Amino acid sequence: MKVCRRETFNAAHRLFRPEWSDEKNREVFGKCSHPNYHGHNYALEVWVEGEIDPLTGFVIDLKDLKHLIHEFVSDRFDHRNLNLDCPEFEGIIPTTENIAKVIWDILREQLDPKFGLEVQLSETEKNKVFYNGK
Amino acid sequence: MKVCRRETFNAAHRLFRPEWSDEKNREVFGKCSHPNYHGHNYALEVWVEGEIDPLTGFVIDLKDLKHLIHEFVSDRFDHRNLNLDCPEFEGIIPTTENIAKVIWDILREQLDPKFGLEVQLSETEKNKVFYNGK
Amino acid sequence: MKVCRRETFNAAHRLFRPEWSDEKNREVFGKCSHPNYHGHNYALEVWVEGEIDPLTGFVIDLKDLKHLIHEFVSDRFDHRNLNLDCPEFEGIIPTTENIAKVIWDILREQLDPKFGLEVQLSETEKNKVFYNGK
Amino acid sequence: MKVCRRETFNAAHRLFRPEWSDEKNREVFGKCSHPNYHGHNYALEVWVEGEIDPLTGFVIDLKDLKHLIHEFVSDRFDHRNLNLDCPEFEGIIPTTENIAKVIWDILREQLDPKFGLEVQLSETEKNKVFYNGK
Amino acid sequence: MKVCRRETFNAAHRLFRPEWSDEKNREVFGKCSHPNYHGHNYALEVWVEGEIDPLTGFVIDLKDLKHLIHEFVSDRFDHRNLNLDCPEFEGIIPTTENIAKVIWDILREQLDPKFGLEVQLSETEKNKVFYNGK
Amino acid sequence: MKVCRRETFNAAHRLFRPEWSDEKNREVFGKCSHPNYHGHNYALEVWVEGEIDPLTGFVIDLKDLKHLIHEFVSDRFDHRNLNLDCPEFEGIIPTTENIAKVIWDILREQLDPKFGLEVQLSETEKNKVFYNGK
Repeated sequence: MKVCRRETFNAAHRLFRPEWSDEKNREVFGKCSHPNYHGHNYALEVWVEGEIDPLTGFVIDLKDLKHLIHEFVSDRFDHRNLNLDCPEFEGIIPTTENIAKVIWDILREQLDPKFGLEVQLSETEKNKVFYNGK
Repeated sequence: MKVCRRETFNAAHRLFRPEWSDEKNREVFGKCSHPNYHGHNYALEVWVEGEIDPLTGFVIDLKDLKHLIHEFVSDRFDHRNLNLDCPEFEGIIPTTENIAKVIWDILREQLDPKFGLEVQLSETEKNKVFYNGK
Repeated sequence: MKVCRRETFNAAHRLFRPEWSDEKNREVFGKCSHPNYHGHNYALEVWVEGEIDPLTGFVIDLKDLKHLIHEFVSDRFDHRNLNLDCPEFEGIIPTTENIAKVIWDILREQLDPKFGLEVQLSETEKNKVFYNGK
Repeated sequence: MKVCRRETFNAAHRLFRPEWSDEKNREVFGKCSHPNYHGHNYALEVWVEGEIDPLTGFVIDLKDLKHLIHEFVSDRFDHRNLNLDCPEFEGIIPTTENIAKVIWDILREQLDPKFGLEVQLSETEKNKVFYNGK
Repeated sequence: MKVCRRETFNAAHRLFRPEWSDEKNREVFGKCSHPNYHGHNYALEVWVEGEIDPLTGFVIDLKDLKHLIHEFVSDRFDHRNLNLDCPEFEGIIPTTENIAKVIWDILREQLDPKFGLEVQLSETEKNKVFYNGK
Repeated sequence: MKVCRRETFNAAHRLFRPEWSDEKNREVFGKCSHPNYHGHNYALEVWVEGEIDPLTGFVIDLKDLKHLIHEFVSDRFDHRNLNLDCPEFEGIIPTTENIAKVIWDILREQLDPKFGLEVQLSETEKNKVFYNGK
């Protein structure tokens, strides 16, 4: 049994490697490398796998999961510039893949090890990623 | 190959344990324990896994799956109070997890054993669960 | 210029006239008259019309509108039974039309008269209503 | 008869008045005033009102409308920082209201005066605005 | 007060004028003129305007409106080829505009004149039209 | 880590076996066997599984995946009649299952073997299929 909580956050970012030339960055990352940043409404699905607790009927209390996501993910990244404001992305290009991985790592540390964990993160209506730590 | 049929139903429910005090229920279930019930538009995805039948090009005829869901799930739960009207939830708190499990059990019994079965059930735009019988 | 804030709430309700027989209620309201209630995820769009304030670039601060909706609408109706818990519906059948009208009346009283006000309320993916006070 | 074309663009922005202190900006604009920008997936609906051309059955060829939106709106704003990269917002705070107004003004100039024009712009799943030039 | 019912139908169509050359049709209608047809999932919103009936709390019983749409619209057009199977489009190019107009005309004839009527019809996620008979 | 690109195409099709009578086809395929075709807006999700490239932060450049889908899938099937125009469906009934399988086969051939590949294809808001080549 898996349960899912969906939360959103809005952030600016830019894809580029500082050691590459502007030209090379544009060649690889296209308009995503634009120097003054652009941004997205990120939609995050956090899936937690476990047994149903017979007392509550919950795998995990989704209110608790919501607060966990708010405290450790949304409140850090919402209305932020991922490149400039978030030490989590120091030396890491904030692609959707890397953001999902960072979020998974953060939540994995907070979540009881008895639970399985998967995250899905969409950057636009057309692009999304899935990560389960493997 | 998996195929999916989506159906919806609207039901009232309440989360509480009768042997607990109101206070304890409120502590664990929050506003979901409110005594006079509240309700949701449940959206159900039923996924059936199998081989493509070379004659029809179908894994399963989705019209048949639709009728199965209507007869055994929607017609039972739609516009009902899950706690009061549905014997399936006698002694079972109608959390999204338990509703998904009850639905999976019902459909598993109706479905040819050659098929795999998974259900996804969303309670709100933010909360959903997945169950595959394991 | 109009701006819109979308909020949701989940409530139980039942459509019936106490002075009618059960049969008559079933004839008119169908399964919506079921005695033990059912429920919905209501999605509310509140549209406020006005001039852009040249200082802020806002017609109305959507944070303020959000708090207004929470305080006067969502917090009253969310996880409630509209028939039993909400005095706003005493003597009023909680159809989507009437719920929208009650919400419009509540917000109209709270909102600066210089603003125009419209509400859209959806009960299911297929049913919704619009009301602007006229 | 009105026809609508929907397009999207992803941009960074920040709400603040340069002549105000950081504190005052934070008081009015909240986290939207954060100095290093954040961003959104903007979804734009452009509605054009007119008569059906009896030869084509079109009010306006939606392919033409699409190209107009791409050339004059999306290509200018997509993957940009509205505050830093877009002269259209010099001296104008890029609130959703002001972005919608700027877009309406741009398209009004390009569109045959025989057509009516309305734009709807959503910034998040919860916030959107409507503008028709009045 | 307006109430809305949403229904869908899936149909094939082709945009072309028989008196024009294939070349001219391709120039005007692009890939929509392809000779062997293509198709869409049409989503129809029917809005009915009127007073709330104080006895029922309904502007119009949405079950009745649903049956009206099914009988006079969906059952005629669903899983059909609009050009070949539907006499309503004899001599009329089945653009979204014209389909909306045909549907409005059909429903206007069936609906009590005391009600206002508007239809919105979407052809794809990006294209839709609105018609109110004016 | 999996990444997903979503694309859409609009096509006509018909479900029938030429060696069966019209009656038998109608019995098995219902209104989907209607002789003059009907159509759908197909929504395709292509999921690619692989390692994050530490240089780019990408599993695969989604711009490349988009172009691959356009060139080998959308441009072939969009605004086409799957039965008449697409040799890929010669002797294959274009059910959603078979379309998904054809698309998976096409993309598998184009995609670097180091990547895993899954496709999800929806035909309507209620029907969809998933295929991963197994």
